[in-house]
Amino acid sequence: MQHITALVFDEFETLDLFGPVEMLGSLKANYSFQFCSMNGGFINSVHGVPLATIAVADLPNPTDILLIVGGIGTRQLIEDSQFLDTLTNLANDAKWVLSVCTGSALLAKAGLLDNRQATSNKIAWEWATSQSDKVNWIKKARWVVDGKYYTSAGVSAGMDMALGFISDRQGNDAAVQIAKQAEYRWASDRGCD
Amino acid sequence: MQHITALVFDEFETLDLFGPVEMLGSLKANYSFQFCSMNGGFINSVHGVPLATIAVADLPNPTDILLIVGGIGTRQLIEDSQFLDTLTNLANDAKWVLSVCTGSALLAKAGLLDNRQATSNKIAWEWATSQSDKVNWIKKARWVVDGKYYTSAGVSAGMDMALGFISDRQGNDAAVQIAKQAEYRWASDRGCD
Repeated sequence: MQHITALVFDEFETLDLFGPVEMLGSLKANYSFQFCSMNGGFINSVHGVPLATIAVADLPNPTDILLIVGGIGTRQLIEDSQFLDTLTNLANDAKWVLSVCTGSALLAKAGLLDNRQATSNKIAWEWATSQSDKVNWIKKARWVVDGKYYTSAGVSAGMDMALGFISDRQGNDAAVQIAKQAEYRWASDRGCD
Repeated sequence: MQHITALVFDEFETLDLFGPVEMLGSLKANYSFQFCSMNGGFINSVHGVPLATIAVADLPNPTDILLIVGGIGTRQLIEDSQFLDTLTNLANDAKWVLSVCTGSALLAKAGLLDNRQATSNKIAWEWATSQSDKVNWIKKARWVVDGKYYTSAGVSAGMDMALGFISDRQGNDAAVQIAKQAEYRWASDRGCD
């Protein structure tokens, strides 16, 4: 069993999380999700989706894939050293780290993207990229892969990245099949944005 | 304030719900969501997303827009007369009814789409359309509008329909702007699938 840990926070962007969940969760292999937050309990997305989460300290399983999303809630977290430390620990322990939208700003601020290529949300590009000058920010990208880090552009790009991740791990046919089942028009060229 | 009521059930399809929530929730007008289920409490999507819901009987606000999603959980509900009665009451009270994926099978079985045009999920097409021969099922459609009923094709098509709904109510520019913010490639031609 592979465990996908999603670290969320109040006012996360709804589709940043659930787009990749749809795609990654449709893998035929044994994957399961753990939805966590710093203190557990209900977390509300920016659109008021009430998600039940467990506290990071209570995660029952190790993290194979870490999913860190974006949204307006990142604006506060970017100065929250306890959150960034937690993110760092989770990311270092994970085999793979996937960020959507301004989730990459959090990774960058934590120093996790130092000397790596990465992308981020286009609307919040200046804010996101200003979090670290040690990152090689790539603006023209639907998503970027550097080692174990996958970073996507804004919101919907997370679905394209998730399918790209599936393609890289399990082959293009698996990704195409999942996109087809979801009647999703996969933007499969990660450099085209 | 306009209230969007999402009626969910165990094993609903994750993106069926949260794709339209992202798009409808990004409207600049005063919209808010009510997530409900027959008995309230936690509802898990097919991918294990734990959503907190209120019971239909406890809905605090009337329903302006009803959102009914699909997923493998519909297979049981299609024979659940209590659920179909509840769906009927909610739909009759709503100004607009939007279904995603096999959500239209539930509407059809309840008789709500009699003598109307509608579409549904393409993978589950035969099962969905077999729920009623009084519906004019349109296979080649991203989404279909008939009176107050909007029905979409599978999963991702719900996002395109939601943007179409926004376009119909608030103009094309509003929909285009929301798609742009979400970096979403809107399939804006509802007849092209």
